Amino acid sequence: MTFSFEIAATQGSARTGAIHMPRGEIRTPAFMPVGTAATVKAMLPESVRETGADILLGNTYHLMLRPGAERIARLGGLHKFMGWERPILTDSGGFQVMSLSKLRKITDEGVRFQSHVDGAEEFLSPERAMEIQRLLGSDIQMVLDECPAFPATEAAIEKSLALSMRWAKRSKAAFGEQPGHACFGIVQGGIFPHLRARSAGELIEIGFDGYAVGGLAVGEPQVAMFETLDGIVPLLPTDRPRYLMGVGKPDDIVGAVMRGIDMFDCVLPTRSGRNGQAFTREGPLNLRNARFAEDPAPLDSGCRCPACRNFSRAYLHHVVKAKEIIASMLLTWHNLAFYQDLMAGLRGAIAEDRLEAFASLVFEAYARETVDDTADI
Amino acid sequence: MTFSFEIAATQGSARTGAIHMPRGEIRTPAFMPVGTAATVKAMLPESVRETGADILLGNTYHLMLRPGAERIARLGGLHKFMGWERPILTDSGGFQVMSLSKLRKITDEGVRFQSHVDGAEEFLSPERAMEIQRLLGSDIQMVLDECPAFPATEAAIEKSLALSMRWAKRSKAAFGEQPGHACFGIVQGGIFPHLRARSAGELIEIGFDGYAVGGLAVGEPQVAMFETLDGIVPLLPTDRPRYLMGVGKPDDIVGAVMRGIDMFDCVLPTRSGRNGQAFTREGPLNLRNARFAEDPAPLDSGCRCPACRNFSRAYLHHVVKAKEIIASMLLTWHNLAFYQDLMAGLRGAIAEDRLEAFASLVFEAYARETVDDTADI
Repeated sequence: MTFSFEIAATQGSARTGAIHMPRGEIRTPAFMPVGTAATVKAMLPESVRETGADILLGNTYHLMLRPGAERIARLGGLHKFMGWERPILTDSGGFQVMSLSKLRKITDEGVRFQSHVDGAEEFLSPERAMEIQRLLGSDIQMVLDECPAFPATEAAIEKSLALSMRWAKRSKAAFGEQPGHACFGIVQGGIFPHLRARSAGELIEIGFDGYAVGGLAVGEPQVAMFETLDGIVPLLPTDRPRYLMGVGKPDDIVGAVMRGIDMFDCVLPTRSGRNGQAFTREGPLNLRNARFAEDPAPLDSGCRCPACRNFSRAYLHHVVKAKEIIASMLLTWHNLAFYQDLMAGLRGAIAEDRLEAFASLVFEAYARETVDDTADI
Repeated sequence: MTFSFEIAATQGSARTGAIHMPRGEIRTPAFMPVGTAATVKAMLPESVRETGADILLGNTYHLMLRPGAERIARLGGLHKFMGWERPILTDSGGFQVMSLSKLRKITDEGVRFQSHVDGAEEFLSPERAMEIQRLLGSDIQMVLDECPAFPATEAAIEKSLALSMRWAKRSKAAFGEQPGHACFGIVQGGIFPHLRARSAGELIEIGFDGYAVGGLAVGEPQVAMFETLDGIVPLLPTDRPRYLMGVGKPDDIVGAVMRGIDMFDCVLPTRSGRNGQAFTREGPLNLRNARFAEDPAPLDSGCRCPACRNFSRAYLHHVVKAKEIIASMLLTWHNLAFYQDLMAGLRGAIAEDRLEAFASLVFEAYARETVDDTADI
């Protein structure tokens, strides 16, 4: 079996369907929990699966530095190493090189940087990024790109884009033929429509199994992100999956799905969980808030995760305040379950032609604000 | 149903059987995982049960300070609060007041101290210690005692013992009648046989459902602990459970079971797990050690816990080095499973009259040394 994408139903620009791969089916729209260093933080792989995840994201940058791609290959690949048998998408490391490492020197050849783990000098090129992903055994591999921070001038974005497109071509060549594995290109160009269009056109000419939108969710307002998607998505092939990288809050995801996006990844549910913040059907809650100290209600009465089934908000407040590991475990589990329920809700709504009603419930709970982290008495 | 203790088989001084309580049976010899602040650190309650635990220990000192005994009572008691329906034994808080709090002033009335959580002045008396345990809904409640540090002079131990015995009497009176719940006395007296004998005699005169041995595992050599047990156990009623508090390493437990102890608690499996240390059938292992970096073998081939079933030593090494939460989760689970397997092994060995052969295997793997934490390259 090779990589294929099937659309089962559409409503407006939104679509629902599935990606078929040898390691399993990925129901779309899909949310990919982030398993940076070969673990979705505070979760066992079987628990991640229990929340409904079909695919994880792994970070090339982190894994190349520790424990090392060659080491993971000798141990049988990333799936076996981390105990996750279903598909894994890996990024190319480009974004993390820019955000986490020091002493970066970018040339046409690639990027030279200093490891944030041990200070060693490291090098990443399109060819090495694809080699690492192949060594990991990644199912969906991303091209190496350069991702400038927001805001940036048009000239800076244009220069960066030209480099990213040359790297995309070399990445695809380095990916070569890997039956059952896929290679995705990444549309760059910031919030400049003509640059985004140029990027999409050049990537389509190279030809990829799927198309990601990069360089969003880097600080721009939601409206700018949605407008950018409105401009890009019509330029992308309808028969290939579209992946919005690093997004986002529940309302970001819903808005992007309505604009034709099929795949997402974000650290928000896991990172928020470790910080005592929960996504619920009523909206975001900060469990540190003293008003939960004697609240016997479950975190989210519509959820069936262990945090909601077996514990009260009062208990979660207690373990968050006491900095107990179980707080990270339970809130991460809940948040990932919430995100997977959100995606299942979106898939059902598109299939049954009621996406707008579903979306308005999510916007009502989430579009107002981010997690309330004011009161902490 | 009330509290009862049934001995099914004996071999020498060792015995195996069960404590019957309304919330469930406790197979003895039993190991109680420590759930200090209403959580066994890094474990979900259902996972603790999966390892084979019949009973947990909760810490009165921590729970009275946060979230507070009255609050837990209003929320339905400790079992409901922390999602553990089986028996819970609570200590009286005396040991932690001495080891964790500041500004202690001990009088006959009780002990005044400063909370290590928020600096507030707190007070614990025999009456308050028992009231807290009743508010928590504890199944097995411990008398308040004073536990002097090792080494201490005979005169200091004798003075402390006299206070502990007065407090034991008041604790028992405060416990009153609680059908289905039990109250245990604590034998003190350091390593002085005549003081231990005096303590045991006075406690038996008061009359308790079980008898604990306190003031051991506080720094004395193992041989002193075993000699003290040799002296005490014959003085205790054979038809009541005997509990050695805060013990210990696997070989400590085996030696104590051979001397007639029925119950244990210790933070060692959980705390070691969070520090990258594992108890295995081959002996202790420090997963930080570089020799595990590419070791594809399971942690302990004789174990069926998730850490051993689904991951390699190489993976555990990686997540320990990367300080990932899953390292604490997996190694805690494994260590608790190891301890419960040890207790099941002891119960089976006593029932089948082969305790010495079983014990010699454990001594061979564990009596040599503690966990090897030298090489960490």
